[in-house]
Amino acid sequence: MHTPPALVTLAQIEEASRDLPREIVRTPLLASDDLSSELGVPLFFKPECLQVTGSYKARAAYTVLKRLTDEQRAKGAAISSSGNFAGAWAYMGRLFGSPVAVVMQESTSPFKIEKTRAYGAEVVLCPNDFDARWNTLFALESERGMKVVNTFEDADVIRGHGTIGLEIVQAMPDVGTVIVPASSGGLLAGVATAIKALCPKARVIGVQPGGSLAVHTSFRRGQVTRVEKVDTICDALVAAFPGELPFAHIQRYVDDVVSVPEAEVRKAVRWLAEKAKLVVEAGGAVGVAALRCGAVKPTGPTVVLLSGGNIMPATLARYLTEEDAA
Amino acid sequence: MHTPPALVTLAQIEEASRDLPREIVRTPLLASDDLSSELGVPLFFKPECLQVTGSYKARAAYTVLKRLTDEQRAKGAAISSSGNFAGAWAYMGRLFGSPVAVVMQESTSPFKIEKTRAYGAEVVLCPNDFDARWNTLFALESERGMKVVNTFEDADVIRGHGTIGLEIVQAMPDVGTVIVPASSGGLLAGVATAIKALCPKARVIGVQPGGSLAVHTSFRRGQVTRVEKVDTICDALVAAFPGELPFAHIQRYVDDVVSVPEAEVRKAVRWLAEKAKLVVEAGGAVGVAALRCGAVKPTGPTVVLLSGGNIMPATLARYLTEEDAA
Repeated sequence: MHTPPALVTLAQIEEASRDLPREIVRTPLLASDDLSSELGVPLFFKPECLQVTGSYKARAAYTVLKRLTDEQRAKGAAISSSGNFAGAWAYMGRLFGSPVAVVMQESTSPFKIEKTRAYGAEVVLCPNDFDARWNTLFALESERGMKVVNTFEDADVIRGHGTIGLEIVQAMPDVGTVIVPASSGGLLAGVATAIKALCPKARVIGVQPGGSLAVHTSFRRGQVTRVEKVDTICDALVAAFPGELPFAHIQRYVDDVVSVPEAEVRKAVRWLAEKAKLVVEAGGAVGVAALRCGAVKPTGPTVVLLSGGNIMPATLARYLTEEDAA
Repeated sequence: MHTPPALVTLAQIEEASRDLPREIVRTPLLASDDLSSELGVPLFFKPECLQVTGSYKARAAYTVLKRLTDEQRAKGAAISSSGNFAGAWAYMGRLFGSPVAVVMQESTSPFKIEKTRAYGAEVVLCPNDFDARWNTLFALESERGMKVVNTFEDADVIRGHGTIGLEIVQAMPDVGTVIVPASSGGLLAGVATAIKALCPKARVIGVQPGGSLAVHTSFRRGQVTRVEKVDTICDALVAAFPGELPFAHIQRYVDDVVSVPEAEVRKAVRWLAEKAKLVVEAGGAVGVAALRCGAVKPTGPTVVLLSGGNIMPATLARYLTEEDAA
């Protein structure tokens, strides 16, 4: 029989929040006058694009490393990531003075590899398949004693993400709707856990781009489901399946998961730059896309989580000048 | 004999700060990990690009209208502006339910005229010369009883701007250096007045772009000076002379005024989008340019005021893809 996993608790998230260092930006809630007028509810952004390393992952990276033993931290720890977690992991490894490694597929863009190395992490390249990634991680464990962290399933990752939900409620105790991007579901899980524990009446909505619907599909079917195809401009939202542990939280705490067309995401990136003066990557902008195209109807004071801002300047320039976004 | 003007006091700025409505964003100080590493001092942004209407002018527009009598507010008030003050004035007129007018030259871009009208202000166009602007303003006064506000010389404008300095000190009592963009000098005057009253040891530095040096020239010469030529990409920093009243504050409270090459300003706009995830217009980015090109040597915890984010998407896209900014 399948034993349901133990869910992360509010107390654990509160502990993670207390432990966060001064390097973590307690991102403010920013009122959006334009979006409030457009939608008829008080609308606020939680801009994790302004977080150190440019995405919310810094919170989880810190939380995971903090909760290792001294001995584990001395030997180091490794994850697999080709994106925002890599930068955050590298930054926090340096902060702890702990050797950290990131396994990346050989197809990863040189830009991302360089950024991760610049923060001081070891980048270990592996062939472009799922098994190779795990084999490389396990080799780091067996040969060098590094702690391997499965970022899809690690409870400390969810604890770290949950600190965002805690800050939202602290800043806005009467929050009515919280809108969160989803990929493997960890962020959505952590935020929803904190929000529902403190504001049971608030609605928590996950958003995925049309080309990457693992959490959306799993939520509809009521079980973890692997999608056959992922093809999205949101390079931070490319998980082909949700984590089991995040998904258990999502089933319990999340009210709905919606999808938005890819074209609406590009428009949202432009809208955020033009109106909100924030640089947000495609995956970070899906919540704004969902509101502006009507996929989510907000009720009460509404917070949209902007999860990251790591977009290439040339890509942002393209979205800014696209005809259909005008 | 020339009577020196009465300077705005800390108490007056504190009163303006208490009066600010909830619509004014109390912009947070955002730590810049990248710039702190680059410069070796703790570096923070005061992002008034996130202010309502996209620039710091919203504070002054509110303060001026708030301090009119009920009768004056009922008849309305008028300014001349082709930029950020226009949008702020229009927004605050709507907030007070007060008729407000903005005199703009016929050469003003249709985009700016439309934005001002969209907020609900009356736009009165006039021929493209200085006298025509004043004649049009005085006609609004004599024919319709509107209060004409000279934004270059109005003490309430400086009070409103000063609230930014107050917030900087409240958030960072040990601030060492504050860097502020300058055009006619009102912002620099207000911020410096608050900073020096509360932190006499802090240095306050004004920055102008190479193509628009009215405050820089006046500061060097020790008297208000009109410059012959203004040619800058910073369309918010185009005053050909400082206001007399702001300049009196600047002489008393400002430590230095520096200039930065125009090319460095474009690079700073790109840097801010790429590294700080903030959309900042050229005039708002001169402080970052000054630090990155070495025109200002920061001492102690340093705050850079990013004064606005109203840049056309196409312009931002151009700066993002320029070769020399790479």
